[in-house]
Amino acid sequence: MSEYVLRSARFQAAEVLNRVIQNGDTVVDATMGNGHDTVMLAKLVGENGHVYAFDVQEMAVASTRQKLEAEGLLERVTLLCTGHQNMKMHVPVSVRAVAFNLGWLPGGDKSITTLWETTFPAINAALDLLLPMGVCTVCVYPGHEAGEKERKALAEYLANLPPQRYNILRQTFINAGPGAPECFVIQRQGA
Amino acid sequence: MSEYVLRSARFQAAEVLNRVIQNGDTVVDATMGNGHDTVMLAKLVGENGHVYAFDVQEMAVASTRQKLEAEGLLERVTLLCTGHQNMKMHVPVSVRAVAFNLGWLPGGDKSITTLWETTFPAINAALDLLLPMGVCTVCVYPGHEAGEKERKALAEYLANLPPQRYNILRQTFINAGPGAPECFVIQRQGA
Repeated sequence: MSEYVLRSARFQAAEVLNRVIQNGDTVVDATMGNGHDTVMLAKLVGENGHVYAFDVQEMAVASTRQKLEAEGLLERVTLLCTGHQNMKMHVPVSVRAVAFNLGWLPGGDKSITTLWETTFPAINAALDLLLPMGVCTVCVYPGHEAGEKERKALAEYLANLPPQRYNILRQTFINAGPGAPECFVIQRQGA
Repeated sequence: MSEYVLRSARFQAAEVLNRVIQNGDTVVDATMGNGHDTVMLAKLVGENGHVYAFDVQEMAVASTRQKLEAEGLLERVTLLCTGHQNMKMHVPVSVRAVAFNLGWLPGGDKSITTLWETTFPAINAALDLLLPMGVCTVCVYPGHEAGEKERKALAEYLANLPPQRYNILRQTFINAGPGAPECFVIQRQGA
């Protein structure tokens, strides 16, 4: 049987990150949430790599710290309880990848969600931090109002970035309903 | 350096086909064109597999035959000079994959292009032929009028297929201009 299985936006993002990230890389988890992706990224960069992980909610940072400790991965990760729009102040080097998983904290307060007003500068900071051929993945969740706004604004913004500088793939599961998550993959061009 | 390089729609399709197709599989090239994909598919199925390849233009069939002969792959391929909407009359078994590359024959007569009126029954035939977890890839070229019509009609049609039966991914290079090719990937669900 074939190993190729289409699932949903976050699996598409994870697949890209698995292919892009090399042992020893520095990467960013722009939305640590419950730490699921942070753990994945910490494994991918290996013991000589490093992950900078951001979240505004203490609860997210605590949950992520716990997961990393349980896996013996805490040393590879810098946990930052601050908005991802401040990324450039905290990440001192260029990075192979930045992962965004927008929306609210699963199991948390649904009134606290990412908003385009801060997502926009954060995406810009991420794009500036990318190494040549580095990748930024962005999963959006248009099933709620702020998410739908983020999707529209993000798609419009990315559609106008110069193709000489970024190659940008939008992945939509078109028969999964109007609220289905989407995954954007932005690869910086150049040597 | 990372091996992950985003390019364009037809590379996305080729990547999926490379991952899905196994040694010994039966597959379909619904639009042989100059035979580039037919050769790729013939290599992927191996010496125990088989490719059914379709094109309405004699010139396409001749060009494909030549390429296959040069690579010693002709035995693995049935070349059919008939419309792909007749697929079910010629393919006797279920298949792992069907590849569509819509538009006109590169280097050929640009007035002869695929049209939604025949693409539609052909896509339907392809979906019916797929094995469970089998995949149909469709590259569309909206840079010309018939291609733009095909893209719209295809997207609308696929968006209404039941997700229990097909999982469908649309891949758009959103900053590559309005005429940029798109790749649709349709995976049949079920065991």
